[in-house]
Amino acid sequence: MADTEKYAIGVDLGGTSVKLGIVSQQGKIIKKTAVETKAEDGPESVIAQIKYGINILLHKNKFKLYGIGIGSPGTVSIKNGIVENPPNFPGWKKINLGMIIQKEFHTKVHIDNDANAAAIGEMIFGAGKNIDSFVMITLGTGVGGGIVFNRKIFRGEHGGAGEVGHITIDYKGEKCNCGSFGCIESYVGNSYLIRRVKIELNNYPDSIIWDLVSKNPDNLTPKIINIAAEKGDDFAKSVVHDLGYFLGAAFSSVSNLLDISTFIIGGGVAGFGDPLFKTIKEIMAQRVLTPLRPKIKIIPARLKNDAGIKGASSLVFYNS
Amino acid sequence: MADTEKYAIGVDLGGTSVKLGIVSQQGKIIKKTAVETKAEDGPESVIAQIKYGINILLHKNKFKLYGIGIGSPGTVSIKNGIVENPPNFPGWKKINLGMIIQKEFHTKVHIDNDANAAAIGEMIFGAGKNIDSFVMITLGTGVGGGIVFNRKIFRGEHGGAGEVGHITIDYKGEKCNCGSFGCIESYVGNSYLIRRVKIELNNYPDSIIWDLVSKNPDNLTPKIINIAAEKGDDFAKSVVHDLGYFLGAAFSSVSNLLDISTFIIGGGVAGFGDPLFKTIKEIMAQRVLTPLRPKIKIIPARLKNDAGIKGASSLVFYNS
Repeated sequence: MADTEKYAIGVDLGGTSVKLGIVSQQGKIIKKTAVETKAEDGPESVIAQIKYGINILLHKNKFKLYGIGIGSPGTVSIKNGIVENPPNFPGWKKINLGMIIQKEFHTKVHIDNDANAAAIGEMIFGAGKNIDSFVMITLGTGVGGGIVFNRKIFRGEHGGAGEVGHITIDYKGEKCNCGSFGCIESYVGNSYLIRRVKIELNNYPDSIIWDLVSKNPDNLTPKIINIAAEKGDDFAKSVVHDLGYFLGAAFSSVSNLLDISTFIIGGGVAGFGDPLFKTIKEIMAQRVLTPLRPKIKIIPARLKNDAGIKGASSLVFYNS
Repeated sequence: MADTEKYAIGVDLGGTSVKLGIVSQQGKIIKKTAVETKAEDGPESVIAQIKYGINILLHKNKFKLYGIGIGSPGTVSIKNGIVENPPNFPGWKKINLGMIIQKEFHTKVHIDNDANAAAIGEMIFGAGKNIDSFVMITLGTGVGGGIVFNRKIFRGEHGGAGEVGHITIDYKGEKCNCGSFGCIESYVGNSYLIRRVKIELNNYPDSIIWDLVSKNPDNLTPKIINIAAEKGDDFAKSVVHDLGYFLGAAFSSVSNLLDISTFIIGGGVAGFGDPLFKTIKEIMAQRVLTPLRPKIKIIPARLKNDAGIKGASSLVFYNS
């Protein structure tokens, strides 16, 4: 490694695994690893696992460590590094994870929630490098969102801004996990999507999805829907179109409210690629206010597989 | 007038009349007037009318004029004072209203769109005096919105942020004037509201609204609905409840996205008062994300009749 390059450790704290990597200021991963989260064993185990993972990376590596960045689920207070109530982490209430890791490794630790880390990752290393203002969307189990305005995260009053997933597109729609109704997440989040498509699939006995799931709808995944759509299956194509339609409606509300015209889309469902992106853009061009229409841009995220690690590490370079 | 007090002229540019006033830094109107807009006669007539109105105020008044503030419809570029495409102003494309008025009266001119002027008015003179972050909503023909974050207007990329009226609450709802579908404005904007209630009224032959409109539904106004609701009319009460429900759903999306928990509500429909405000708050408490629930505040605007003049004049004090 060149002596002049700066390096950060990125820690992508997930519900089942902690992914970690040493990342250069250019966004290159030098070394990476993953350990179990052991969330069910309580916060002390999780913290021990994070330390263990970081030590694996540090072992035999001689580089100028500039800091550690952690992307975490739950509510994160970036000022004092406190992580509050991460979903699916039993027994974890309010823990000053930043200070604990900082004390252990004697280097500055930057924590943010995973949606903001993804947005900062795209801004520093990815598709947002040359874009001052954009909304970053991660389509996965949920719909994560981070708002970048003038190259700063817009955090709102209590650090919770950017919850694009809980924009309602139908006030009397299906109940969402958050307790509200008709949130965009309840239309496009993985589990909702799979549940809906499994039911609808019964109306399409000729769909090639039946072959792809070996006649068992329980095998259905977003990836299979995508494969079927790419092979020209009409039902699968209509599912992708509907996703774009729902997302386009939600993003139109976001764009009208924020006057931000660029959306960067990552996560599994973003793998649906061009047909999805084209539909989102078409729908938005019909729905946003007139002055915004020519300005709308829907761009795929550039950080793919290691987006979590790179996003977490980018917190170090963003803040320094 | 005390010599130490600063004064601004506020110009509330509307489609049919221009309302103008001399306003003290304390938010007191010292003198006011109104002139016809003459929008249909073209931009030159409108500009002449604005100058005429300002001259009426200046006549025989000796006070330290600190600046002129103009609240304008249309897209406003606050930096260079350009007003673009105000709706219902035929022939007006892009006019540097700020520079024209500044040259005429040799004093600094501040222009903003009327929704932001209303928000700044509440921040400087009204209900937002001690609130760092809030969303200002004006319920009238349309639904105006202005976002105040950390005592600054959030303007977005091109100065158009805050369009709360065009948050969708039902992606397959009724067509809105903006071209989209199911915008909150198409549920609660005056003309949409009146149109809907006129139709529904036929199902409620016992409603006292029939008496209040002298048996002619064309006489229906938001005020009449309010009077009927206050007198206990069940149908009118259900209309007010529905309004609160629609607004609560839309504001929940706004709150989730911005992490801003205070809404200040002004304009005609806000005259529905407590029952409306209570419903909005109840609905939001059920729909926003859990951490926001205890924080939601729905507050009536404090600037009432002269909100437009005061809001416009507040631009001078906000920027200085």
